[in-house]
Amino acid sequence: MPRQTQIGLMSNTELVSEHETQTSNYEKLAAEKLTLDLTRGKPSPEQLDLSSALLTLPGDGDYRDSSGTDCRNYGGLHGLPELRAIFGELLGIPVANLLAGNNASLELMHDAISFAMLYGTNDSPRRWVDEPTVKFVCPCPGYDRHFSITESLGIEMIPVAMGNDGPDTHAIAELVANDPAIKGLWAVPNYANPSGVVYSEEVARELVSMPTAAEDFRLFWDNAYAVHPLTDTAAPNLDILGLAAAAGNPNRPLVFASTSKITFAGSGVSFLGGSTANLDWYLGHSAKKSIGPDKINQLRHVRFFGNAEGVRAHMQKHREILAPKFAMVLRILEDRLGAAKVASWTEPKGGYFVSLDVPEGTATRVIELAKQAGISLTAAGSAFPYRNDPEDKNIRIAPSFPKLSELETAMDGLATCVLLAATEKALGK
Amino acid sequence: MPRQTQIGLMSNTELVSEHETQTSNYEKLAAEKLTLDLTRGKPSPEQLDLSSALLTLPGDGDYRDSSGTDCRNYGGLHGLPELRAIFGELLGIPVANLLAGNNASLELMHDAISFAMLYGTNDSPRRWVDEPTVKFVCPCPGYDRHFSITESLGIEMIPVAMGNDGPDTHAIAELVANDPAIKGLWAVPNYANPSGVVYSEEVARELVSMPTAAEDFRLFWDNAYAVHPLTDTAAPNLDILGLAAAAGNPNRPLVFASTSKITFAGSGVSFLGGSTANLDWYLGHSAKKSIGPDKINQLRHVRFFGNAEGVRAHMQKHREILAPKFAMVLRILEDRLGAAKVASWTEPKGGYFVSLDVPEGTATRVIELAKQAGISLTAAGSAFPYRNDPEDKNIRIAPSFPKLSELETAMDGLATCVLLAATEKALGK
Repeated sequence: MPRQTQIGLMSNTELVSEHETQTSNYEKLAAEKLTLDLTRGKPSPEQLDLSSALLTLPGDGDYRDSSGTDCRNYGGLHGLPELRAIFGELLGIPVANLLAGNNASLELMHDAISFAMLYGTNDSPRRWVDEPTVKFVCPCPGYDRHFSITESLGIEMIPVAMGNDGPDTHAIAELVANDPAIKGLWAVPNYANPSGVVYSEEVARELVSMPTAAEDFRLFWDNAYAVHPLTDTAAPNLDILGLAAAAGNPNRPLVFASTSKITFAGSGVSFLGGSTANLDWYLGHSAKKSIGPDKINQLRHVRFFGNAEGVRAHMQKHREILAPKFAMVLRILEDRLGAAKVASWTEPKGGYFVSLDVPEGTATRVIELAKQAGISLTAAGSAFPYRNDPEDKNIRIAPSFPKLSELETAMDGLATCVLLAATEKALGK
Repeated sequence: MPRQTQIGLMSNTELVSEHETQTSNYEKLAAEKLTLDLTRGKPSPEQLDLSSALLTLPGDGDYRDSSGTDCRNYGGLHGLPELRAIFGELLGIPVANLLAGNNASLELMHDAISFAMLYGTNDSPRRWVDEPTVKFVCPCPGYDRHFSITESLGIEMIPVAMGNDGPDTHAIAELVANDPAIKGLWAVPNYANPSGVVYSEEVARELVSMPTAAEDFRLFWDNAYAVHPLTDTAAPNLDILGLAAAAGNPNRPLVFASTSKITFAGSGVSFLGGSTANLDWYLGHSAKKSIGPDKINQLRHVRFFGNAEGVRAHMQKHREILAPKFAMVLRILEDRLGAAKVASWTEPKGGYFVSLDVPEGTATRVIELAKQAGISLTAAGSAFPYRNDPEDKNIRIAPSFPKLSELETAMDGLATCVLLAATEKALGK
């Protein structure tokens, strides 16, 4: 009879033996004194090199947009029309409904919520700070920085499960229909962070059409990975504004995007899409804090890309760097954990993450073991509101930054930690 | 007996004659169908050209700061150390107490107040939104965009008069000592907008040492014209953080500055200075909205300036462009309005504005006459909280943007409008 490899079916003797094997593997791993980082979805230097031309753009004497505006001076709260045209085409948003901002779409999200807190939205009966409670629906696992914004503002976060084509819309519909305190929902529609899930059109349609008790309910539609496929078939960018308008809720979605994972992560441009009423509302408040975004950086991006096709071609080069890293992650997970059947993981078709589920109650232990072996992972629970993963099983893997060889070492080490923690658990240690 | 030129001393006959003369002058002016703009403190294209090198910086392959940080990627909430060193030297602020941000110090001010509203400051007993009332002291005439921020947030603004060396500290001391709702004061210490006043060290010392009923009182020290003298004698940048610490109020000042009027108005870098506790507070909240400022633009500025002396040398070139414009404004005011004795104006030694006081009750009329003649001026009352100039006499002149020849035409036209409005008033029209 062959030796059992599926941990859940092992005899106690086999488990003890497996635990000894993994302990030995782990000791070897720890002895290597690694310093590897799988924490954040940062582009690698090789990816950043793809945009090197930005370091000398827009170029000598080049500071006017096509309408003749001197981009060096103050003004232009909407952002450069030609940059908005390029990304409007990619995102499926009319230029008039898209603003271009500075280097962080996170800032646009934070500002939109802060403005709602301090002034109310254009549909709010009162400022959100004057509401007894404000709540957001949070599909999870989700993006930790989204949850940080709502947590810091004291907005109560309600977790909702993610499915294969988006969050559980039945659960969401029931929540938002009955609770007027629910003012928003965080969504990453394409290649969601960290699950890689692509929202289906059906899910999107339900999210923009479902009745909500709050008249100022907002969908925070963070399309961070709009043009970031890892395969030949790119997920479409749903016309969320059109769907919402057709459903009679034109002001529901606020769309966010950026070039943080297209050009330079820290020096890109960001976008905010919305109905005319929403953008008027946003601009009315943002005009108090800025005389306009960095238009020269926007012009720099226009010169760099040329047009939407230029962005697509550029993203193909990112894919050539990223796809082998994702393939490596998936191969090692399968090779090391497949037979043991102690873990499951996503196989994303785009985006920046692989979401790994380890045996219930062991994620914290796995991350701690990895850390002691010099492999940094995002803290346990990060992908959940209040950093509370109720089953303590989710681990977010960010394969983009390390070199392929380092990634191999880190993933192999991580697999060892998963197996060690799984045998510890099975043995009741 | 010579004909009287001082309007206040004219006989009725002389007044009627003068009014006819100015009416005729105004009709000629209106017939010219001008389109001239004296509204905003925008650098001229010639000034922007001084920073043309930024259009190709930081340069091919140049993306690391001196510590080796890849400025293209995420991170670095404090901003680049070497940029902070250059401006720390100029502003008189230790590098550790200075952050570098994106393209608008206005955004830093807005954020600081928004954070105080939403979270309270590090010294606040509660969030400012939970206070029954929040008030700011507003020396005026002052900067309209400051007042817009506080007005939009529902912060009550208390006007206080400006003197020759800063605002009336006796009035301020009495206000802040007795009213715990007063949480802040707007200040532009060097070449104040629009008065050109330079705060004396004595005034600064009083502002940081006066007892305040609010334990979280903040001085919003907007040093927008820190290195913008128009003469050989530059106003010193007072060590406001040191003075505040010495007075036992280290957290009182928040210092703001930017390169908006040094490099490109829309694409510069901004600065926030404060005590360690204040910066920790600020960063704690700003970390929720951004993964860091545009470090490549900061590196671009480091490469452009080299060091603090590079900034000073650069500002000398601005001065060579600006000083003749200010001289032209003052010459025309003296030539056209001096003898009539109907107006007074500041003679700034730096900054971006001349503040003109016309006969009480005529500023609105002057601005309307000028507008009808194609000369745009900032709306009447702009330099006062709630746009309410109680004497309706103040007009802000921004000489920087127009060409010298256009400025001459605009100022001559403005003088005609002042004289026409003054004779109208004297005749009871």
